[in-house]
Amino acid sequence: MSGEGERLAELAKRRGYFFGASGAYGGAAGFYTFGPQGAALKSNVEDAWRDRFTVREGNFEIEAPTIMPEPVFEASGHLDGFDDMLVECPDCGESHRADHLIEDNTSIEDAESLPVADVEDLLGDHGIRCPNCGGDLAEEAVTQFNLMFETTIGPGSSTPGYLRPETAQGIFVEFPRIKEYARNSLPFGVTQIGRAYRNEISPRKSIVRTREFTQAELEQFVDPERDDPDLDRVADVEVTLYPVTEQEADGGAYVETTIGAAVEEGIVGDAWIGYFLGIAQEWYEGVGVDTDRFRFRQHLPGERAHYAADCWDAESEVDGDWIEVAGFAYRGDYDLSKHAEYGDDDFTVFREFEEPRTVERAVVEPDMSVLGPEYGSEAADVAAALEELADRNPAAFDGDEVQVTVGGETRTVDSDVANFRIEERTVNGEHITPHVIEPSFGVDRTVYTLLAHAYREDEVGDETRTYLSLSPTVAPTDVGVFPLVSNVPELVDRAEGVVDDLRRAGFSVTYDDSGSIGRRYRRQDEVGTPFCVTVDRDGLEGDGPDTVTVRERDSARQVRLPIESLSTELEAVMDGDTSFDGLVAAYDAVTADTDA
Amino acid sequence: MSGEGERLAELAKRRGYFFGASGAYGGAAGFYTFGPQGAALKSNVEDAWRDRFTVREGNFEIEAPTIMPEPVFEASGHLDGFDDMLVECPDCGESHRADHLIEDNTSIEDAESLPVADVEDLLGDHGIRCPNCGGDLAEEAVTQFNLMFETTIGPGSSTPGYLRPETAQGIFVEFPRIKEYARNSLPFGVTQIGRAYRNEISPRKSIVRTREFTQAELEQFVDPERDDPDLDRVADVEVTLYPVTEQEADGGAYVETTIGAAVEEGIVGDAWIGYFLGIAQEWYEGVGVDTDRFRFRQHLPGERAHYAADCWDAESEVDGDWIEVAGFAYRGDYDLSKHAEYGDDDFTVFREFEEPRTVERAVVEPDMSVLGPEYGSEAADVAAALEELADRNPAAFDGDEVQVTVGGETRTVDSDVANFRIEERTVNGEHITPHVIEPSFGVDRTVYTLLAHAYREDEVGDETRTYLSLSPTVAPTDVGVFPLVSNVPELVDRAEGVVDDLRRAGFSVTYDDSGSIGRRYRRQDEVGTPFCVTVDRDGLEGDGPDTVTVRERDSARQVRLPIESLSTELEAVMDGDTSFDGLVAAYDAVTADTDA
Repeated sequence: MSGEGERLAELAKRRGYFFGASGAYGGAAGFYTFGPQGAALKSNVEDAWRDRFTVREGNFEIEAPTIMPEPVFEASGHLDGFDDMLVECPDCGESHRADHLIEDNTSIEDAESLPVADVEDLLGDHGIRCPNCGGDLAEEAVTQFNLMFETTIGPGSSTPGYLRPETAQGIFVEFPRIKEYARNSLPFGVTQIGRAYRNEISPRKSIVRTREFTQAELEQFVDPERDDPDLDRVADVEVTLYPVTEQEADGGAYVETTIGAAVEEGIVGDAWIGYFLGIAQEWYEGVGVDTDRFRFRQHLPGERAHYAADCWDAESEVDGDWIEVAGFAYRGDYDLSKHAEYGDDDFTVFREFEEPRTVERAVVEPDMSVLGPEYGSEAADVAAALEELADRNPAAFDGDEVQVTVGGETRTVDSDVANFRIEERTVNGEHITPHVIEPSFGVDRTVYTLLAHAYREDEVGDETRTYLSLSPTVAPTDVGVFPLVSNVPELVDRAEGVVDDLRRAGFSVTYDDSGSIGRRYRRQDEVGTPFCVTVDRDGLEGDGPDTVTVRERDSARQVRLPIESLSTELEAVMDGDTSFDGLVAAYDAVTADTDA
Repeated sequence: MSGEGERLAELAKRRGYFFGASGAYGGAAGFYTFGPQGAALKSNVEDAWRDRFTVREGNFEIEAPTIMPEPVFEASGHLDGFDDMLVECPDCGESHRADHLIEDNTSIEDAESLPVADVEDLLGDHGIRCPNCGGDLAEEAVTQFNLMFETTIGPGSSTPGYLRPETAQGIFVEFPRIKEYARNSLPFGVTQIGRAYRNEISPRKSIVRTREFTQAELEQFVDPERDDPDLDRVADVEVTLYPVTEQEADGGAYVETTIGAAVEEGIVGDAWIGYFLGIAQEWYEGVGVDTDRFRFRQHLPGERAHYAADCWDAESEVDGDWIEVAGFAYRGDYDLSKHAEYGDDDFTVFREFEEPRTVERAVVEPDMSVLGPEYGSEAADVAAALEELADRNPAAFDGDEVQVTVGGETRTVDSDVANFRIEERTVNGEHITPHVIEPSFGVDRTVYTLLAHAYREDEVGDETRTYLSLSPTVAPTDVGVFPLVSNVPELVDRAEGVVDDLRRAGFSVTYDDSGSIGRRYRRQDEVGTPFCVTVDRDGLEGDGPDTVTVRERDSARQVRLPIESLSTELEAVMDGDTSFDGLVAAYDAVTADTDA
């Protein structure tokens, strides 16, 4: 980590955003604890996501367990395929991701997609050594390491379970239940916010690549032939796209366009993907991502899962690196088909035809008074074999006789006895396996991005200050409340009353009476609190209603408000119904500098 | 489960509240998935808890990992002591909790507190057989089974990790970090809401005893000599108490009293416990627990952990059984002292004295010009041993000579050379280990209780209806919106517009246009939606502003409101700022029965 990352990690630890977990026991690599500010920021990000992707879209949110039994991951492919390449240093015993070592030491960019044998060769060819101790890795075996955390369910060791590597499987597995709730009517979306686990070989980059993290995922189930998104809602949303063609071109550039144009021109191949890119762009802007450091990058053919028709990542720039903060994949019917194959339940929905259709169907009605005496206890099996054959190959009944195999023996039956005929039936619809479009968000990485993009330094008075210009939607603390001085009981009591009122109104409030008023403003600036309220003697004297000063974080400007209007006016500014300029126009700006 | 439990399980599954997880793969005992309604209810319960126990109390919420390394649980005692008694049937191989078998088959009530050998004997003495196959358990060994789910962190098997059996340890372990954030100033409270895991031998009773569940815990850190709660805030709260004395008395009865009186009379021994019982009572009432089926029961001496001074459980009655929904324990300095002993960090806070104190301190300043020549390379160790001795036993320096042991050998030094003296020092305070009061809430059990206590049946028109009388604070859906009929585009468009407006205003809305209007009301009644809005032709015709009908769930009464006031009026009713009666008085009650 260079400058920005280090400043962020230092601020995060000092101000209680996040820090390595279990520090008293030497820590556990890849596990982080969110302190008070970080947990509040993260929880606000989750609420904002829920509001936009569940509530506003009318989707269904579920909460499935984080531990799931083994057959789920046999079906999903995680048991066999969810591996990273591991190489262990023969000298110090430290494990490393072999593909990362190649990428760090050569010009190869996507070593993960190479075969294991090639990666082994490359370690030797490039003389790559252990980053920990310098040990020689040339002769070391590269092995596949499954990234799922394994455990055992119940007493005994007979039932293995795994911590889910993504929240999505909980949605797919419960599809048969949820579709009933949706009354079998497509399209519908199902969301889940929760922990996911990946036993990374070498976790790194702060909370960007951890072993336990939080995802917010949406699985949109659609009828691929009938359901279209309401693209008009996001047609005008402006996005920065980095499609495959530009990534592969010499001097390739970003495409600055709108969602409507991108879908129309085929830059984004699927309308649903386009729809969700548009919603995501609006959402990221709303929670405070710097759009100049944000893009949608299309997956290169090698990055994409074989079943995924089109994939885009939302990426944010932090510290010179682009990190994936969300993924958008058209997954077709892959997931539901797999669970239908491995599981014992119905993963289809019934699609009614526009008009009922007449279809021909071959049926047999074997004459058991003939088959019975002839085949005895085998007669029923012969009849069943005839039915199966009629379904599979009606032409077999064209001749006078028909042959079936029962118990390894060929049995010959007269066509007349089989009683074969073609029936017409009216069919109202058919069972289809819905297709899935999956927008998948990393909550921790979003939190990391918001902190990085909100980090500012400026001069107030003669001092340099550090502040986080977080959006009021996600800022951990809404309001800081201070008595101007802490040794005047009247000011302290009044300030505590203001705290209580604001908390009752649902604001997250920090009370602080320690140190100079300037120092207290700085503390709140550093954790990104949008507004500070100070109770001073001026406000409690005189004839009019009692007043307090309200200071805006970014501009450090102040305005004097009646205490009785405080909660209403703050709410209006937070919700964006009015601006701080509006407050200044409506009330008295404070010119005296109490900021120092 | 008898009547109430079965009705609830059936409704829960049919209406998407909760159901056994991974059903397509035969299920996994002890794991439940919350469907759309249940996840929303649960999330609302968590938000209500956060609002009351974190935001309103000004506490700090954190989010620690669910996987923690082994040393944490060595310190907490879970590695050695967190066991249940297991007996395996020799015939069918099924595992059972031996203590539960005893309790189910004898009059013994608290078999969990008996020694393993006694439980083994009791199985034989009472001829207890396997509930699954009837196999004989008389000769079977009872073993201790640790309830933590174990896993491995990182590649190789060198680093065991455990899924936390309670969220509390994440708070205790990070205390050194959080106290800095609290600027070392007691009292402060730290909260956490999250998953916890217990590998139950035989999970049972729906979501009451599962293997993965959600806790909401508060650890209140206090200076036991100085910090008192603001008991006035809850002194008048009425509670139903079931203290030890009444539980042990013949014909013991509940004590109906107030928190203030209970603490004053010593029924509740600690003021902090009293404070949290009061807050909890108010909170449970607010989210909709039936207070006639709710009590606080004091732990019997045998139930209490040895370090806990006083413990109370909040219990709710469901289906004739009392289930524990929260616990309140005074844990003293047990937890922080344990982590201080096992971990490498400072788990104390500095307590300033009211007045600086003068204390005497023994010091030595050994004359190295004597020790050096005499002891050579060992001189520094001899000096250190003298310092340590002065600290430990100043009287040792009373004679002419003093003896210390260095490297296994006794060394004798002249007292003059040791240069012993008593110094006076001014000390401003001392380091103390805070005491902990722990209110710990089971979120799933609270959800279960709310559903059970909200379940109602009555007659509307000529029909029996089932409804959930859930509080608007926690109801999964706020509003159902319907066009009166679905084949009039004008009504459908207008209804969809109402849905969109309400969602933008933050309401959770269900749109439904399928089936008769009466049927749609019933569906919302069954999932506890407090209000339904119907767009009908009457409301869109005529000269005045367009109107819709609003129906209240419990009374099935209706009122006609202008669409433009809908969102504001609904918000006022939800927040309790006005009542449905108030709406009826202010607008037109609808007498025509569109409910059928």
